[in-house]
Amino acid sequence: MSQQEQPQPRLGPIEVATVETLSSDPPVPDLVLADVFLRQHGKQSTDQQQQPSTVRAFYASSKPERLYFSSTRQLHAAVVTCGGLCPGLNNVVRAITLTLHHEYHVQRVYGIQGGWHGFNDKEYPPMILTPESVDSVHHQGGSFLRTSRGGLDLDKVHTFLTKYQISLLFILGGDGTHRGAYKVHEHCRTTNLDVAVVGIPKTIDNDIDYIDRSFGFHTAVEAAQASIRTALVEAKCTVPNGIGVIKLMGREAGFLAAYAALGSGGDVDAVLVPEVPVVLEGPDGILPFLQRRVLEKGYAVCVVAEGAGQELLEAIQETEQGSGNKKLPPIAEYVRDEIIKFFDKVGSECRMKYVDPSYSVRSQPANAADSLYCIQLGTGAVYGAMAGYTGFSVGRVNNRIVYIPIPQLVATSPRFMNPHGEIWQQILSTTGQPSPLKKTQSEAES
Amino acid sequence: MSQQEQPQPRLGPIEVATVETLSSDPPVPDLVLADVFLRQHGKQSTDQQQQPSTVRAFYASSKPERLYFSSTRQLHAAVVTCGGLCPGLNNVVRAITLTLHHEYHVQRVYGIQGGWHGFNDKEYPPMILTPESVDSVHHQGGSFLRTSRGGLDLDKVHTFLTKYQISLLFILGGDGTHRGAYKVHEHCRTTNLDVAVVGIPKTIDNDIDYIDRSFGFHTAVEAAQASIRTALVEAKCTVPNGIGVIKLMGREAGFLAAYAALGSGGDVDAVLVPEVPVVLEGPDGILPFLQRRVLEKGYAVCVVAEGAGQELLEAIQETEQGSGNKKLPPIAEYVRDEIIKFFDKVGSECRMKYVDPSYSVRSQPANAADSLYCIQLGTGAVYGAMAGYTGFSVGRVNNRIVYIPIPQLVATSPRFMNPHGEIWQQILSTTGQPSPLKKTQSEAES
Amino acid sequence: MSQQEQPQPRLGPIEVATVETLSSDPPVPDLVLADVFLRQHGKQSTDQQQQPSTVRAFYASSKPERLYFSSTRQLHAAVVTCGGLCPGLNNVVRAITLTLHHEYHVQRVYGIQGGWHGFNDKEYPPMILTPESVDSVHHQGGSFLRTSRGGLDLDKVHTFLTKYQISLLFILGGDGTHRGAYKVHEHCRTTNLDVAVVGIPKTIDNDIDYIDRSFGFHTAVEAAQASIRTALVEAKCTVPNGIGVIKLMGREAGFLAAYAALGSGGDVDAVLVPEVPVVLEGPDGILPFLQRRVLEKGYAVCVVAEGAGQELLEAIQETEQGSGNKKLPPIAEYVRDEIIKFFDKVGSECRMKYVDPSYSVRSQPANAADSLYCIQLGTGAVYGAMAGYTGFSVGRVNNRIVYIPIPQLVATSPRFMNPHGEIWQQILSTTGQPSPLKKTQSEAES
Amino acid sequence: MSQQEQPQPRLGPIEVATVETLSSDPPVPDLVLADVFLRQHGKQSTDQQQQPSTVRAFYASSKPERLYFSSTRQLHAAVVTCGGLCPGLNNVVRAITLTLHHEYHVQRVYGIQGGWHGFNDKEYPPMILTPESVDSVHHQGGSFLRTSRGGLDLDKVHTFLTKYQISLLFILGGDGTHRGAYKVHEHCRTTNLDVAVVGIPKTIDNDIDYIDRSFGFHTAVEAAQASIRTALVEAKCTVPNGIGVIKLMGREAGFLAAYAALGSGGDVDAVLVPEVPVVLEGPDGILPFLQRRVLEKGYAVCVVAEGAGQELLEAIQETEQGSGNKKLPPIAEYVRDEIIKFFDKVGSECRMKYVDPSYSVRSQPANAADSLYCIQLGTGAVYGAMAGYTGFSVGRVNNRIVYIPIPQLVATSPRFMNPHGEIWQQILSTTGQPSPLKKTQSEAES
Repeated sequence: MSQQEQPQPRLGPIEVATVETLSSDPPVPDLVLADVFLRQHGKQSTDQQQQPSTVRAFYASSKPERLYFSSTRQLHAAVVTCGGLCPGLNNVVRAITLTLHHEYHVQRVYGIQGGWHGFNDKEYPPMILTPESVDSVHHQGGSFLRTSRGGLDLDKVHTFLTKYQISLLFILGGDGTHRGAYKVHEHCRTTNLDVAVVGIPKTIDNDIDYIDRSFGFHTAVEAAQASIRTALVEAKCTVPNGIGVIKLMGREAGFLAAYAALGSGGDVDAVLVPEVPVVLEGPDGILPFLQRRVLEKGYAVCVVAEGAGQELLEAIQETEQGSGNKKLPPIAEYVRDEIIKFFDKVGSECRMKYVDPSYSVRSQPANAADSLYCIQLGTGAVYGAMAGYTGFSVGRVNNRIVYIPIPQLVATSPRFMNPHGEIWQQILSTTGQPSPLKKTQSEAES
Repeated sequence: MSQQEQPQPRLGPIEVATVETLSSDPPVPDLVLADVFLRQHGKQSTDQQQQPSTVRAFYASSKPERLYFSSTRQLHAAVVTCGGLCPGLNNVVRAITLTLHHEYHVQRVYGIQGGWHGFNDKEYPPMILTPESVDSVHHQGGSFLRTSRGGLDLDKVHTFLTKYQISLLFILGGDGTHRGAYKVHEHCRTTNLDVAVVGIPKTIDNDIDYIDRSFGFHTAVEAAQASIRTALVEAKCTVPNGIGVIKLMGREAGFLAAYAALGSGGDVDAVLVPEVPVVLEGPDGILPFLQRRVLEKGYAVCVVAEGAGQELLEAIQETEQGSGNKKLPPIAEYVRDEIIKFFDKVGSECRMKYVDPSYSVRSQPANAADSLYCIQLGTGAVYGAMAGYTGFSVGRVNNRIVYIPIPQLVATSPRFMNPHGEIWQQILSTTGQPSPLKKTQSEAES
Repeated sequence: MSQQEQPQPRLGPIEVATVETLSSDPPVPDLVLADVFLRQHGKQSTDQQQQPSTVRAFYASSKPERLYFSSTRQLHAAVVTCGGLCPGLNNVVRAITLTLHHEYHVQRVYGIQGGWHGFNDKEYPPMILTPESVDSVHHQGGSFLRTSRGGLDLDKVHTFLTKYQISLLFILGGDGTHRGAYKVHEHCRTTNLDVAVVGIPKTIDNDIDYIDRSFGFHTAVEAAQASIRTALVEAKCTVPNGIGVIKLMGREAGFLAAYAALGSGGDVDAVLVPEVPVVLEGPDGILPFLQRRVLEKGYAVCVVAEGAGQELLEAIQETEQGSGNKKLPPIAEYVRDEIIKFFDKVGSECRMKYVDPSYSVRSQPANAADSLYCIQLGTGAVYGAMAGYTGFSVGRVNNRIVYIPIPQLVATSPRFMNPHGEIWQQILSTTGQPSPLKKTQSEAES
Repeated sequence: MSQQEQPQPRLGPIEVATVETLSSDPPVPDLVLADVFLRQHGKQSTDQQQQPSTVRAFYASSKPERLYFSSTRQLHAAVVTCGGLCPGLNNVVRAITLTLHHEYHVQRVYGIQGGWHGFNDKEYPPMILTPESVDSVHHQGGSFLRTSRGGLDLDKVHTFLTKYQISLLFILGGDGTHRGAYKVHEHCRTTNLDVAVVGIPKTIDNDIDYIDRSFGFHTAVEAAQASIRTALVEAKCTVPNGIGVIKLMGREAGFLAAYAALGSGGDVDAVLVPEVPVVLEGPDGILPFLQRRVLEKGYAVCVVAEGAGQELLEAIQETEQGSGNKKLPPIAEYVRDEIIKFFDKVGSECRMKYVDPSYSVRSQPANAADSLYCIQLGTGAVYGAMAGYTGFSVGRVNNRIVYIPIPQLVATSPRFMNPHGEIWQQILSTTGQPSPLKKTQSEAES
């Protein structure tokens, strides 16, 4: 009980992520600290004077007391959804529409159809969004605005913005879309278009830096757990040697696979993610591990993120084909086939139960937690734009809605899951699966 | 209002499907008519004396007033699940167990593990089923007894039946399993084993003749509809030209695909089933039809039963590879690729959204309607066995639980969906898809 | 094996339920037998010549080859939903609308708003129903046409039918509504309005005679089971002496309570329905029975249909208040309070978990099984009307869609659950609850 | 773009919430900042030197490098669940059990049955919890350990702890339970029982201070939204003047009502919570507001937290009955009746659709988001206890699992929803309902 003798942690200076503004007289924002974790080093560090590290902070979202756009009743706004589907898109679009109409009585809200392509208005004319037209869209999955990949054409966007006199532009999309959104923002600056450009980050992979989680992620985890349940039921009920393999999304980051596996409790025996090397055979190999599990309890279940084992597949590709051309190989199918071969090799037989939920994970309507988050994002996006902020993205950091400058957001996204962090350690503890990382570390120590 | 002048329809003689019995003094069963539809032919048939057709009838299940097995407290029973999973397996096993214990206080109910393999008791020792051990199994999908394909060994079954003194044997499984069950029954007859052998027909494809529907089918349709919804959301929300293709089970019969498509209402544009030839191109082709739909409304959704288009694929196989070896080709993947090619050929581009729900359709727990049905099946199976009937299967015909002699059941199973019947006609009416059948018919008439 | 010696059952003459028709030259319908159960009486009846009983038959629904209404492109139809909500209303209305438009290309389909009240078009102007406007209504619960109780005014209906030139009128509703529909039909006859009047029977209680089940019933049972689960979880997890009481709909018939209890398996300890007298205390009393259950396993769950125990409550009312005025007393609340008092009286204490799902049972969207049924009903209703039949109701009998003359339908509805039938006997067998009926019977015999 | 001229915010000193420890040489914990929101006041505050406020911090949970309990293989632990049910109880108990067994290989984990009562081991003998016995409990709602209210007897707890040699005691419960847990902790201290006592806060009302949210809350909001949907469907589909009233939990705080209403989007017209005075009539009255809504769109939906309007009911009680005895009156029923009376008074009529989901909100199995949270709580609880911390509760603060001293936790719990905070402001913005608070404030200003 000698806490008072312990070194008092100290907080460093605040480094504020400044958001650009259209106004020459911008409001003074409240702030939200991003870094809340202070590592202490006990007695061994008392002798040396520890330098407190900088604490990052973001602008807090709040209803602006002063509006940049003065006559809101003449304002025109536009909303667009880009890239793949994600639970909650309709909820965010709806919240933006309702806030613009109910709180600011703007003249018109346009829904751009089909992503960036929709700025070419001949093919996909913009919809007019009203409280009535968005009334029940949040009960449906997908995006009623429709979406597409790529297709940004700055000239067409410019033409659209001037033709429809848009002052506020809300863009829902992932990394690439955000980079595009920032180009639009810069273009508006250069050409003196007085438009507030706001991004709302969307990803089913939860791989956006800084924010607590991306919208729709809880819903996706719920759906992914249903697929794990399917594979479990099949593997568990089949003799001999049922093995379930579930392919989940996660090109760069394994959050979805890890969270779904963890949420499923002990139902999963192994998880393969992009952040941890995939080792098939040998003492740390996943194949003999799965075989041991099957021996113990009669069946096993393995979750594979689609981006796992890139290094493995590339090595195999080089060896086998002498070709190193970068393409994303289907790791889950590869693992499935290797499991079958491995059982065959050791004279056993397995019943493979392969489950690829694919679109069913992302086409769901948002669940309660995501619904609420989407409302907060939509409202925060409108508040920020009405205050005159621009070139920013809206997200939740430490349970507060904040504004993040787009360049800062895209600089470190996609983020990865820390294989030494809490989630992955709990995966290892729950599954007991071999950890190639640990070995690497201990080898380094020896 | 001249109904009285119409010819009075007449009912023909009753043809009863007689169930074998262990008893020399069998009970007199009540009957359930199987044929309830009387076709009338109006005035044009009045002059000719129409011969009334035979009316088939099955033994009605009921609680036996007289039991074949006298001292039920010494009775041993066994239950086994064979083949693929299906919603409701646990419910049926549970109902059998509860009825045996609660109504007849039998000494022991064995759960054979892992299908026919479980009769070799060393590898998979039988479980002892009690009301407590089956208490909540009906809330889980799959089969807690586990299952497998094939593996019937009459000697091992014989050894098991004598070793464990089994008097009642309940076998859940499909066509093949029922053929096996009848072999067991005949073996028992030959070797004077006094065992009532009862089959409970299980199929996710609903392709068993005579019965109203197979257990688990409602639940499977519900799950299949969820997959259709997924593909619809993706196709509808993607520009340009989103096309959803959903692969559903149905090797010989398209009931699941047809019911799920119909239940989804206008969400489906085309359904391909084994019963109707698949035509890809030309005026009746599914490819130009889907393209037209995409032109009209921006997207299209197509459901493909796994057994559809056999004749087409075989023809292609022969043409392209010069090989006619019978194997089930993956039609859904083939159609998916052909759609992409077709759009490409006509200078367009489509966004393919392929959904294969696979195991998720059959690993669900039974829904309310199926739960109830499973209870009735389990109870009926026990009643029939206790009455001394054997070599029969239990099913629902015209909403009554009946006993069907296994030879009669397997003679005409799998049954097919009538392409001139109500369901398929409603598919055609709902989707407006081209109907190769109709053309063939009209061609024949000309 | 002496079946051939058994008396051959014989079928009696067919009694066809003749449907009225607008045409002087009506089509000759196919028929569906309603009575499929043949009771046999074994040897004891061989000596006496048994008279075969009449077999009832209904007109089978089918797509008419000849239409009563010749120029369908000028036809106007109207649909109305009356009475309380029920899963599937939107599905039926949608199926009627789609069939009228897609198969007959009628000029106009009106949706009457708010039940009978909507015929007074000033307050609730009729909606125009198109394939587009009903596109996704089947994914929502309730009735998008809205509904109300009572309010039939023949003059207003007459004015509406003539003003809007309605030739086909589809009325969804219960007993009362059907009586009203028949009055409309008779009125049309009297006033020479050439209108086909079709009823589609709707009841959450499944208490309509002849038909296999009412639409929405499967969905309602599913929802009711969720409530039973809630009460079970609460009762089971609470010490000491958790008791769950679930109030379910069922004013005259206990089908919903019985089916939900049965489908929940052994989760329910007792079911109280209108068809079986409620006895509280004494050897057959439900109160000491529940207390015994609580002693045995720590908790108990009791389902109460809202119409149960009328005779008990009336007797109590008379005794206690000297007043015999007919009003439906809240039996579930009464039983709840009596359970608490009884435990108190015997020196124990119970934790009451009372669950009243009320509207949640009937406001669900239709599940897969009901969706399909609704499509068949809607299509069948249109087929019948187009053929010129009128004053009939559409339903499913032995898995076939048939037309039932409204007078015959309402004559014996609401029907009751047979307390000596299969369902109730399985309730008794599953729950082990005391059966006042049995006692009464045996007393009568002595 | 003159952010650099703005006053730089400053962070105040850190105030660490010190957790008690059994060890004389406690570990040095990492810290998590609790206060992340920095209010800035713009130019008006530049002249005055603003004092930076204290920043609170909690001990971060982490896997201890040094264990207080050395020979873990001889350790005995116990878990108990107290108070009402809540989604996720089984998940937390399971995570505690698995972590103790898998990571520390403790000798025995006891599950105390039925809350505090279970420490009297004769009536409710403790269960032995193993990885097998808890394998699938997380798929069920409720608490498989069962629970009860009250019943803490320190002597019995003492006897139990010594008899079973418990070193780690995990207590899941609400405010009252935590106060009891701290008494147990103090008792252990006083009597030199070397027991780590850990609380895991449980509340369906989300009214525990400091933490991001309480476990099970997301699941409860999901279930509550289902009830809102039921009332909406009924009110919307009924003519004339359908009004839905939904009673939700929330004795002291309206989080559940507010979150569920917000998550339901525009489906709710008014929300009554304990934190905001309920005004029935007059310009700010809820009754005329609801009537206006009904006039506008034909129906209205109102959510009532069970603890709302206490002041109103007490005032009415005093006036009408002259009695001021404190008892929680049924506000939702009161509001329901007043709505009916109000419509009656103004010569109109309403169709009341009253929905009380009661137990269905809290008896659900945990959804994906809550499942994950429960695993983190359970693991964190074990880590803290193994490190030798005691008298603390485990929770999530700014997305990190932390240890909160129980006295600090209970000092400010239940917390209230801030009626000037983001959530309530969004309720007002979404619903447009009158805000008695605003009026009061502006009145105060005038």
